[in-house]
Amino acid sequence: MKRIGMLTSGGDCQALNAAMRGVVKSITVRDPEVEIYGFLEGYRGLIYGNFRMLSGHDFSGILTKGGTILGSSRTPFKTIKDPDENGLDKVEAMKQNYYKLKLDCLVILGGNGTHKTANLLREEGLNVITLPKTIDNDLWGTDMTFGFQSAVNIATDAIDCIHTTAASHGRVFIVEVMGHKVGWLTLNAGMAGGADIILIPEIPYDIDKVVDAINKRKERGSKFTILAVAEGAISKEDAALSKKELREKQKNTKYPSVSYEVAARIQEKTGAEVRVTVPGHTQRGGSPCPYDRVFASRLGSEAGKLILDGEYGFMVGIKNREIIKVPLEDVAGKLKYVSPDASIIKEAKMLGISFGD
Amino acid sequence: MKRIGMLTSGGDCQALNAAMRGVVKSITVRDPEVEIYGFLEGYRGLIYGNFRMLSGHDFSGILTKGGTILGSSRTPFKTIKDPDENGLDKVEAMKQNYYKLKLDCLVILGGNGTHKTANLLREEGLNVITLPKTIDNDLWGTDMTFGFQSAVNIATDAIDCIHTTAASHGRVFIVEVMGHKVGWLTLNAGMAGGADIILIPEIPYDIDKVVDAINKRKERGSKFTILAVAEGAISKEDAALSKKELREKQKNTKYPSVSYEVAARIQEKTGAEVRVTVPGHTQRGGSPCPYDRVFASRLGSEAGKLILDGEYGFMVGIKNREIIKVPLEDVAGKLKYVSPDASIIKEAKMLGISFGD
Amino acid sequence: MKRIGMLTSGGDCQALNAAMRGVVKSITVRDPEVEIYGFLEGYRGLIYGNFRMLSGHDFSGILTKGGTILGSSRTPFKTIKDPDENGLDKVEAMKQNYYKLKLDCLVILGGNGTHKTANLLREEGLNVITLPKTIDNDLWGTDMTFGFQSAVNIATDAIDCIHTTAASHGRVFIVEVMGHKVGWLTLNAGMAGGADIILIPEIPYDIDKVVDAINKRKERGSKFTILAVAEGAISKEDAALSKKELREKQKNTKYPSVSYEVAARIQEKTGAEVRVTVPGHTQRGGSPCPYDRVFASRLGSEAGKLILDGEYGFMVGIKNREIIKVPLEDVAGKLKYVSPDASIIKEAKMLGISFGD
Amino acid sequence: MKRIGMLTSGGDCQALNAAMRGVVKSITVRDPEVEIYGFLEGYRGLIYGNFRMLSGHDFSGILTKGGTILGSSRTPFKTIKDPDENGLDKVEAMKQNYYKLKLDCLVILGGNGTHKTANLLREEGLNVITLPKTIDNDLWGTDMTFGFQSAVNIATDAIDCIHTTAASHGRVFIVEVMGHKVGWLTLNAGMAGGADIILIPEIPYDIDKVVDAINKRKERGSKFTILAVAEGAISKEDAALSKKELREKQKNTKYPSVSYEVAARIQEKTGAEVRVTVPGHTQRGGSPCPYDRVFASRLGSEAGKLILDGEYGFMVGIKNREIIKVPLEDVAGKLKYVSPDASIIKEAKMLGISFGD
Repeated sequence: MKRIGMLTSGGDCQALNAAMRGVVKSITVRDPEVEIYGFLEGYRGLIYGNFRMLSGHDFSGILTKGGTILGSSRTPFKTIKDPDENGLDKVEAMKQNYYKLKLDCLVILGGNGTHKTANLLREEGLNVITLPKTIDNDLWGTDMTFGFQSAVNIATDAIDCIHTTAASHGRVFIVEVMGHKVGWLTLNAGMAGGADIILIPEIPYDIDKVVDAINKRKERGSKFTILAVAEGAISKEDAALSKKELREKQKNTKYPSVSYEVAARIQEKTGAEVRVTVPGHTQRGGSPCPYDRVFASRLGSEAGKLILDGEYGFMVGIKNREIIKVPLEDVAGKLKYVSPDASIIKEAKMLGISFGD
Repeated sequence: MKRIGMLTSGGDCQALNAAMRGVVKSITVRDPEVEIYGFLEGYRGLIYGNFRMLSGHDFSGILTKGGTILGSSRTPFKTIKDPDENGLDKVEAMKQNYYKLKLDCLVILGGNGTHKTANLLREEGLNVITLPKTIDNDLWGTDMTFGFQSAVNIATDAIDCIHTTAASHGRVFIVEVMGHKVGWLTLNAGMAGGADIILIPEIPYDIDKVVDAINKRKERGSKFTILAVAEGAISKEDAALSKKELREKQKNTKYPSVSYEVAARIQEKTGAEVRVTVPGHTQRGGSPCPYDRVFASRLGSEAGKLILDGEYGFMVGIKNREIIKVPLEDVAGKLKYVSPDASIIKEAKMLGISFGD
Repeated sequence: MKRIGMLTSGGDCQALNAAMRGVVKSITVRDPEVEIYGFLEGYRGLIYGNFRMLSGHDFSGILTKGGTILGSSRTPFKTIKDPDENGLDKVEAMKQNYYKLKLDCLVILGGNGTHKTANLLREEGLNVITLPKTIDNDLWGTDMTFGFQSAVNIATDAIDCIHTTAASHGRVFIVEVMGHKVGWLTLNAGMAGGADIILIPEIPYDIDKVVDAINKRKERGSKFTILAVAEGAISKEDAALSKKELREKQKNTKYPSVSYEVAARIQEKTGAEVRVTVPGHTQRGGSPCPYDRVFASRLGSEAGKLILDGEYGFMVGIKNREIIKVPLEDVAGKLKYVSPDASIIKEAKMLGISFGD
Repeated sequence: MKRIGMLTSGGDCQALNAAMRGVVKSITVRDPEVEIYGFLEGYRGLIYGNFRMLSGHDFSGILTKGGTILGSSRTPFKTIKDPDENGLDKVEAMKQNYYKLKLDCLVILGGNGTHKTANLLREEGLNVITLPKTIDNDLWGTDMTFGFQSAVNIATDAIDCIHTTAASHGRVFIVEVMGHKVGWLTLNAGMAGGADIILIPEIPYDIDKVVDAINKRKERGSKFTILAVAEGAISKEDAALSKKELREKQKNTKYPSVSYEVAARIQEKTGAEVRVTVPGHTQRGGSPCPYDRVFASRLGSEAGKLILDGEYGFMVGIKNREIIKVPLEDVAGKLKYVSPDASIIKEAKMLGISFGD
């Protein structure tokens, strides 16, 4: 009989519940006595011993449910080694709760920051299995993360809706898509929504090239232009700044986000009316799409198998359509960026999409 | 054989195409030779004689298509009597184009501003039939406008998505819903999405009452609160200002919109993390929902009948589930507000929803 | 402190949970000590004393959830006065359970059959409040029933999907829509989906008129035709039969449902390839649409008010957009049919839709 | 300047238009003078010289549109070498039209049968590029076909809807999913929809094992069971028959499809009420999902590149997330089955899903 701790950490996304259901179902089928301790609100629950015992009933009917039944929170990796406001050593507290509950393993679902902490716990001697959760699809070591495709669907829906209104009014529209560091989500939603210009963090843009692309469309008779702009899109000038200079600049900006700056510059240079739409946190919410449900279930199923086999220290991921295990130390701290030379970028350019470069 | 001019004016919305298809189909069935002149980009097309001849083929397959095949623009009623930048008398120009094309009637689809201009044209002697298009459902003389239910669906989707993420993170979330002057859209999307607090222009809010409602939820163990806030939500203090003072205040605000101000004040008074989501123009876009398709088709069908019968000067609307005709002079310039004493408001309050009053 | 029994009976539909949540919320806001007894699987739960105590927690998060948390079953009115297989007097058993639990009132959600039994219980002296639940919208005394608009959406989605495939292949397609006795669902889904021919129980069809309509479309260059056919569509010949003859004929038919017979007859007379799609029970399922959520919440809210006021013996319904109460004896046993002379039928015909009559 | 012929053949599916748009956009960007001849209704258009010249305008706005702007038809490979009813040699006719129009290349979008004919044309000396279109995902040589994920979404929606109604009524429900020979669609929709039992052609089922699985659920307190059954699901007995015997048996069956037979056998052995839902052709229809839009656009983009480079005789496909080219002779006539030993099957079984084997 296994004793499993489980937690979801970082920004929530779709299919967290589906993944946890997968883990628990696949263990329960062979180890019906398994005990599941669900830590509440991410690492906070593990630090402060805040958990509830979960039974099969808790996982019934949650395959299609967005969010996470355990709650989540952001506990920044940067401060994980600092004591909390009462002087508590967080890492030590997590270890103590792990040993007090006599856990065989921790199942941790999260993104990049979460994986750094998970790897730290592994280094501290705990048994850890992780699942790659993020709408950003930026985790190293896996072709795909769950939540991504569902978020693409929501961002694409937004672009679809904007399309009809843009076409009716002959305006320039910007849809701001989530993604501070990587552009997978913006790239895919942009291509799926038929955006004319896509700006992502990995390909700094030249505002004049952006304006050229808009003007060329006008010349060809297109009355409107749609841009999909990542939250972390960056101009060539800004990309050339030092980190410190950039931080300073961003602190003093009058724009709520990058899209508004892009909008202002286009308006200034073309005179066109530019509108910005920010779907924001809706991109993390709602029911997971069928793709994510199947994928998260498969990951959960294989995670359960690893646990039953006593194989710890891995993230489960996907490679060439097969579920794989990747050593946590290989994953932690690495991001999977969109390469400006990737085939998909070339393909997008062949379709006439401008990246402003 | 009739000669019909047609135009869509103001912010676009769903089911404009469905409504135009309805008009044209119902005329064509009995008058197959009818000539349809589609003026492009709203009243601009009528002013500058910019149109295209439309055939049945143009209306095939557009029942489900968002936007408007004629394009739209905002031509403010306030300036309709002013000459344009080249000294052209706009009203005179519209009349001349009407007579030059020997039109029997103008079919005009639009909202509040559009109806004022339509009524002016009627007063000038043109034959006019209008259809009530607006996501705001604020037109006087009809129980419902098309576009409204589709917009409710999109705004509700946004709240649904936010629900799962709010529940996972235990935050206060604001979803800003379209509607500067009336609250129908926010009220319906808020009730449909299960919002805990709904702020609409017709019921000025007291920020302390809003904070009370959030705190009461916390006391009862609810970790999150969702607010549906209309673009035109207004505090009791601001509602007490003169128009001039209010305009001055709004000009100097540092907030991109009302929701951000509400968010800041809640954050200040509760310490809670408050997030704002602005679905914005997506609320006007995408395919019309089945309700709007049926409704717009019925309106179009009856508009066609009026035209064939030579009955002009009416808006078609709906009353007690039957399509009716309303004299344009009764409609123009009047808005249909949410009454703070309406049954639906009482019902919402009985469900525990706070309006901050 | 009130003691309320609650049950959902008959075929399930969307927004049952939303309606129950509305009732419970509106009572709890003013009577926080209220006790709710949820009878399981419709009247069966009341007959056999099978129930669970419900708390506010049971009603949290179910606004958007399809189905019914209480389960449902069909207990035909025809046999309600017959003893069960063990000789139990069902009506007496329901009364005893009502009195044993010292209930103040029964809240019953259901359709036509359910209302007959509810009225019987009222006649037997029980306090009863009912809510009009059915995808058929066929209850007398209310403009609308909840579930209807959600079902329209699903049936319309099916027609939309068929549209693209029909257009690609140039075939005749039939989409069979639920509704054995009334055609509201088929009529609305058919108009919303742009069906060319709509067959409903209230307007018996002449197969030659149906074929004419298909041929006319062909002549005008349309390569495909889509029919929305109600489960209970009936030919003029069959409508002329006596009830007994019809039953006999239906017993011996080789077709799984009416649509297949219509398909065969069209195929025979035109040589066209005819395909049938049966969305079936999907029309009852899934999350309620925003319209139904608002409507069911309003009904629930007013039902709660009636209970707190001690006003029993009513169905809550809607009339001219206001929630009303209707005496149960006026509702029970009456159906609300589509009149062949209704304005909406005329409007549909003006759009070129054939009803085969 | 290139001259390109294009056609879509076989059952239609989502993203055909997106794929064609991709091909044309990627060619046009570099060869603006390209001439596109669109053959109507699949190979029939090529045989009978029925085509229309297409311009960029035809491909505008079709990224999100279901179906195919060229129409489609099934021209069975088995009879492609037989003369038509007027004695016309079809293969010769296609060659003549190809040469008459001085085409550089044929772009053919289709599934398994289509690829056999495409390969035949290649053998006859024509330049051919194909794109893998099918909701079945059964084409050899590519990890994925477009249409598949969109069809999974629709079939999953159906299972989701059935879920709420099944849970409310405590019944056994069968959802019949498209797929006569391969089970990818049923497998993925079944896993995404949380089906308890999945029957696919590649894993013949034992009805007693199916019944066991239903009974085990009952014992564990589950009131309902959902089966996802492929059109081509087959029992162990039937799988043991010779082809001839099977054909004979199928000819004489009284069931409209396999699902009805499975339903009858379950009903017979368990006494449970079993309901069948057949989403049917809806699975091919509607707007392509974002995944398919991106994928089809990428395939189109690379197909365009091959054509500009004069590389012919390939199907474009995807392997490990990169678009690849596969020699047509390697693809034609081969199906990609679900292996009963595939990891995904094992993972599904670990989740407690029964395949009846």
